[in-house]
Amino acid sequence: MGTGFISIWFLPLFSLLVFGISSAHFIPIRFPTPIAQFQAEKDSVSSPTGLYKEKFFTQILDHFNFNPQSYQTFQQRYLINDTFWGGPKKNAPIFLYTGNEGEIEWFAQNTGFMYDNAPRFKALIVFIEHRYYGKSIPFGGNEDVAKSNASTLGYLSSTQALADYATLITHLKNNLSATDSPVVVFGGSYGGMLAAWFRLKYPHVAIGALASSAPILGFVNLTSPYSFSKIITQDFRSESENCYKVLKGSWQQIEDTASQNGGLEKLRNSFKICKNYISGGALEGWLSTAWVYTAMTDYPTPSNFLNPMPAYPVKQMCKAIDDPTTGNDTFAKLYGAANVYYNYTGTATCFDLDDDSDTHGLGGWGWQACTEMILVTGGSDEESIFPPSDWSYDARASSCKFSFGVEPRPDWIPTEFGGHNIKRVLKRFGSNIIFFNGLRDPWSGGGVLSGISKSIVAIVAEKGAHHVDLRFATSEDPKWLQQVRKREVKIIAKWLSEYYHDLAHT
Amino acid sequence: MGTGFISIWFLPLFSLLVFGISSAHFIPIRFPTPIAQFQAEKDSVSSPTGLYKEKFFTQILDHFNFNPQSYQTFQQRYLINDTFWGGPKKNAPIFLYTGNEGEIEWFAQNTGFMYDNAPRFKALIVFIEHRYYGKSIPFGGNEDVAKSNASTLGYLSSTQALADYATLITHLKNNLSATDSPVVVFGGSYGGMLAAWFRLKYPHVAIGALASSAPILGFVNLTSPYSFSKIITQDFRSESENCYKVLKGSWQQIEDTASQNGGLEKLRNSFKICKNYISGGALEGWLSTAWVYTAMTDYPTPSNFLNPMPAYPVKQMCKAIDDPTTGNDTFAKLYGAANVYYNYTGTATCFDLDDDSDTHGLGGWGWQACTEMILVTGGSDEESIFPPSDWSYDARASSCKFSFGVEPRPDWIPTEFGGHNIKRVLKRFGSNIIFFNGLRDPWSGGGVLSGISKSIVAIVAEKGAHHVDLRFATSEDPKWLQQVRKREVKIIAKWLSEYYHDLAHT
Repeated sequence: MGTGFISIWFLPLFSLLVFGISSAHFIPIRFPTPIAQFQAEKDSVSSPTGLYKEKFFTQILDHFNFNPQSYQTFQQRYLINDTFWGGPKKNAPIFLYTGNEGEIEWFAQNTGFMYDNAPRFKALIVFIEHRYYGKSIPFGGNEDVAKSNASTLGYLSSTQALADYATLITHLKNNLSATDSPVVVFGGSYGGMLAAWFRLKYPHVAIGALASSAPILGFVNLTSPYSFSKIITQDFRSESENCYKVLKGSWQQIEDTASQNGGLEKLRNSFKICKNYISGGALEGWLSTAWVYTAMTDYPTPSNFLNPMPAYPVKQMCKAIDDPTTGNDTFAKLYGAANVYYNYTGTATCFDLDDDSDTHGLGGWGWQACTEMILVTGGSDEESIFPPSDWSYDARASSCKFSFGVEPRPDWIPTEFGGHNIKRVLKRFGSNIIFFNGLRDPWSGGGVLSGISKSIVAIVAEKGAHHVDLRFATSEDPKWLQQVRKREVKIIAKWLSEYYHDLAHT
Repeated sequence: MGTGFISIWFLPLFSLLVFGISSAHFIPIRFPTPIAQFQAEKDSVSSPTGLYKEKFFTQILDHFNFNPQSYQTFQQRYLINDTFWGGPKKNAPIFLYTGNEGEIEWFAQNTGFMYDNAPRFKALIVFIEHRYYGKSIPFGGNEDVAKSNASTLGYLSSTQALADYATLITHLKNNLSATDSPVVVFGGSYGGMLAAWFRLKYPHVAIGALASSAPILGFVNLTSPYSFSKIITQDFRSESENCYKVLKGSWQQIEDTASQNGGLEKLRNSFKICKNYISGGALEGWLSTAWVYTAMTDYPTPSNFLNPMPAYPVKQMCKAIDDPTTGNDTFAKLYGAANVYYNYTGTATCFDLDDDSDTHGLGGWGWQACTEMILVTGGSDEESIFPPSDWSYDARASSCKFSFGVEPRPDWIPTEFGGHNIKRVLKRFGSNIIFFNGLRDPWSGGGVLSGISKSIVAIVAEKGAHHVDLRFATSEDPKWLQQVRKREVKIIAKWLSEYYHDLAHT
């Protein structure tokens, strides 16, 4: 089974985990199996699913600087689907996904909301891949060169990505003779942050944004570093008090066992670890990864975003833990729970804790987390299901220095995009943003959870997980999820009708 | 008399002139005498006028890029005056000038509006100098290095400047424990463009902007390249039809004379040119410079922004041209008119057309005009007081290639800041911007001349010149100018009262 370990600063947003479980700076985090491997080629190749055609745009390396190397270009990938589009003559809208930290196909396949609603709005669907991810690699598409050092990685930033999107979509609209077609942007997680920022910084390009599970307030001095683990703790505790207690108490048992004679062998057998060596820390990372990601993707229907999983996977994990047949055997309980995340298909015979394959092309996030994306998630208090730990900026900074020779700029994002007193700032400025958050999503702690103005609204789903609203609708979706999407559609319809009114009268 | 020739792409916005008077790509443009020379030293030195103290801030070289050279820093100058400030405890406001293409002291001395109104609002006054101008020079403050080539000049851009301002004022507010003090930004000309863009891009930093004579629509495909010369033509024609005709017919006479035997000597004597050689093109540049700058600074009171000048200088020029004592002697008429601009003090005995001194430190604009600031002003039609000429992007591009080895990015500013369909875009987005324009100002052709929303308003003064509203009030100011300023003050007062209301209730 292909799972992956990626050191802590290399973690993408939807899995950025900063726990001080061991004293090591780099905590191994397990990555999911691939959803599907698409073989897509250059220049408008249709996907096997028929969801999109793949295209490329020649993008400039640095938008904000005019020295000679800034003029270098790279091929930026975008996916397009015009099946439902009403066309340029009708100024039919464009639904644009502002890609986040991974291969764009992965996001296209998990953002069914755009496909589900494109027919109704006769919308063109476009997904743009974020620079330095997937196939959108500067320096001749050579990932080894592009990610070799700080000089080449330097162009990987959120502001450059937003300028990429503005440039690409403006060119695309011109090419399609669709300059008056309104653009609505969508994004989840880091992509949701980009969508919200895109509407704020490029109102002349996008008429509105659906920013799903976008922790734009998740930065230093804006959000408590404890909120992330608190929400995960609450997710498990809400299923059963026993589940919470078993998880919380398990770290000590693992450490005690690991320090005993033959203890590591016992752990290796208990968790069916393939290799014949193991460290306690690696096992703790493997388990905590499962708890975190499962909490994030605690969807009400079976899903395959990170790993194949059943509906309500947190409930399933607690069911395994609470299973009376395992009696007092904590490791058997943990193993059962971990299997919900790592082995729902039941095909794994053993687990490789050291696999560091990067299934979704997420390898650029470490750089982003070391420069500007100083999201605070590492704190864990006495109540937490994770071992107590403080979040330390200094630890982050020294890790970044060690990994990339780079100094983070923790004040940059709030300076460039705001965040402090967001209600006061946006009460009389800006419009047309939906901030969706599910309160079971640990990232919701850094989200906008209450409405700001008539047209900058917050939709909060108590039972929702990470950008659940953006997923393809299914017949099993609970009522509350149907209602969330209905509300979103209604708001987007209003933006569009206002736009067409203004187009006719301005 | 210290006047200066600067080739066409090196011209700052308030004097950017792109006329094809001669066929040469580089048209010499004359620069003004200094207003005053202040001897200001590092670290909080008071100006002789008492208008400000001079301070420096350690600024980062590139905000949008994280490669090692972007971490270089430079000393950015700002001027501060806290005489009237109500202080941090009262959250008293900050009036911030977003510096444009020249030494910041020059703008401070010509933006009396901020000083005149600071007492009323108990405002702190801050002027920040634009990077690469005055004393705010990257690369160790070494101008020779900073401006030596495209690699070092590359960091000179509007987006970097805006990020500088956001970073500096945020730090300054923190240092003054004044995080809740509202910031209102002011700027004229290119500084006005920056002020408007700053409000749009950094609403979390500035609560509103007074953008005076800011041609944010003066770009390719947004404004006619003929509007600039059309307005100047109209300025002179409004004084007298004879004045217009003499100016319009003069170029042919100069060229005819220049091509005659002994003609250049005659021109030299007619215009009291110091050196014993002269080209017809240089003289034409010298004269057109005078007409353009005088139209721009056609203020209703004596001024000393570019050169010392009388009140209503266009009227004075036409008076000289219409003077019956000069009969049919066109050169005597032109000479009389030119003296209004070049020699109002009457101290010049001859004029040096080749002086290329750069009195106000404007030398970075050529780079900006060759990269992103592709303002279109070069067209001149059959009605114009200037010789007919077309504006040509290709000519600009090849000049830029020749001068800097750089390719302009003409689409960048509209992509980054918008401009197309500005009314539709900002009707439901953004707030708190005043666009002031005087219709006698040639730059008004690229300005926002009609209101966009309740709080994005246009104030248009038929008789106004280039950012006349920002000048120190005098007892001789005409009623219309007093009313413009009164209206501006009233609007700013409203922004502030709304802010304090929100501060108390949000």
